Amino acid sequence: MPGAKETVAVIGLGAMGFGMARSLLRHGFTVVGFDPSATAVGRLSAVGGHAVDSPATAAQAAAIVVSVVINAAQTEQVLFGPEGAAEAMPPDAVFLSSATMDPAFARSFGERLQATGRHYLDAPISGGPLRAEAGTLTVMASGSPIAFAKARPALAAVATQVYELGATLGTGAAFKMINQLLAGVHIAAACEAISFAAKQRLDLNKVYEVITASAGNSWMFENRVPHVLAGDYHALSAVEIFVKDLGIVQDMARQERFPVPLAAAALQMFLAAAGAGMGGDDDSSLARIYAQLSQTVLPNRQK
Amino acid sequence: MPGAKETVAVIGLGAMGFGMARSLLRHGFTVVGFDPSATAVGRLSAVGGHAVDSPATAAQAAAIVVSVVINAAQTEQVLFGPEGAAEAMPPDAVFLSSATMDPAFARSFGERLQATGRHYLDAPISGGPLRAEAGTLTVMASGSPIAFAKARPALAAVATQVYELGATLGTGAAFKMINQLLAGVHIAAACEAISFAAKQRLDLNKVYEVITASAGNSWMFENRVPHVLAGDYHALSAVEIFVKDLGIVQDMARQERFPVPLAAAALQMFLAAAGAGMGGDDDSSLARIYAQLSQTVLPNRQK
Repeated sequence: MPGAKETVAVIGLGAMGFGMARSLLRHGFTVVGFDPSATAVGRLSAVGGHAVDSPATAAQAAAIVVSVVINAAQTEQVLFGPEGAAEAMPPDAVFLSSATMDPAFARSFGERLQATGRHYLDAPISGGPLRAEAGTLTVMASGSPIAFAKARPALAAVATQVYELGATLGTGAAFKMINQLLAGVHIAAACEAISFAAKQRLDLNKVYEVITASAGNSWMFENRVPHVLAGDYHALSAVEIFVKDLGIVQDMARQERFPVPLAAAALQMFLAAAGAGMGGDDDSSLARIYAQLSQTVLPNRQK
Repeated sequence: MPGAKETVAVIGLGAMGFGMARSLLRHGFTVVGFDPSATAVGRLSAVGGHAVDSPATAAQAAAIVVSVVINAAQTEQVLFGPEGAAEAMPPDAVFLSSATMDPAFARSFGERLQATGRHYLDAPISGGPLRAEAGTLTVMASGSPIAFAKARPALAAVATQVYELGATLGTGAAFKMINQLLAGVHIAAACEAISFAAKQRLDLNKVYEVITASAGNSWMFENRVPHVLAGDYHALSAVEIFVKDLGIVQDMARQERFPVPLAAAALQMFLAAAGAGMGGDDDSSLARIYAQLSQTVLPNRQK
């Protein structure tokens, strides 16, 4: 159809994938989507996308396949599992992999796919569901010039900031892991600090005001501490996300014989929160673990 | 002398105290200063201050005594040691204590001084020597309304941001310690992350660009990582500062039975750097420890 935009397949229609699908629809792309959840595919149909029953079916007519699943294992299934996308994709299509993963997996998946003639973009995303829906994500991507050329229109529909980090597969994934190392440590530090302030009965709103204007500030302190001040632990980003991501950091670092004592300490606190039953709650719940371990009273929404 | 500004005593004329003395002189105060180092007092005389030979002599004619020493032990000497300032101060003068310390010491010193009729402001400072000299420090202060009333003109000469945190002595010190907990953890995390990126042979300038625009950013990452990128470990803030300040955090937390695993991990890295002979070098030197422990190559100014 002359003038019409290409078809994009979105595999994985959770909060992030669905938001990206909507952004693509809004930019005039035809969107075909797959998710194992009937609720998720129903939601796509309701906004004008086409729901199908496997990654292979979704990929058949797609110029771009966007994979928005949780980890490397799911990405491998999407590509190479039964009814996987790899062999179903048109010969010159590009696979855009956005799950956070060890760079070694990104390299491996990319090489396997490229051996079939298709293109692979190692393209982790950053920003939550709201930014996915608004089309204002950040993407840290690496891949061949031709993969970038093919993916750029779709990337422009979902992201306002696309870092093009060269041709080496794994570089996008590696940048994302550096960001996640810092983000995870900073969440744990923010929860440690605000709970320690509560233990000393300091005025926590004042602590927030002073720290966000001082050298102790971080993006995560500024973003997460308001959840603690409000006593609202409804998940905007769940504890389990950083159990996963700091777990990947640990695996990479162990493999490279690189000590990461800060990331290791932070992971233990995320594990404690998940182990205490808060895995699905907001990651600011680490403050509740510190409070439990010290008989500290935090602000409580119910009061 | 009608119309003339008051006399301020500055005890401790290191980089911070000398900078504050210059700011006070620039604002028209008469400045009397003491430091055990002859070089330091000579520097004060050269810019128009009056050098004297003890805290007591400095305090005699001062409406405000500013103590800019390194820790609680030195502050106690300045106040109550031989030739200390406490008994020498005019009866209604105010003592402004700016050393970083455990809030329990701030409470104790304040109460001892107030028992003699003088006033005490628990007023830790934040910002380096350049901001001290420019008169643009941040002060986190607590004390009585009368202590604040007397100290405000001098505070206005040295700081652009003065947080008045109530009448309870120790609150200023406690806010400072929350800031130092976060700042110390963020420096260690920044060094862990940038060295781990170097181990993976990522483009470190690109890592800096991406992270400072992402959720992994912190004030310290943004401020310290350029030292690593330049390979320049000349001390702007020395490793020993956070050996001291995270040590205070540990002591406070242990006393309160409050676990601080992130601050504890960070302190171990500062201790490793100091133990390896870098105690007087810039605190971004933690990156060199990570690099040594992993055969990682960092940018080198000599190359």
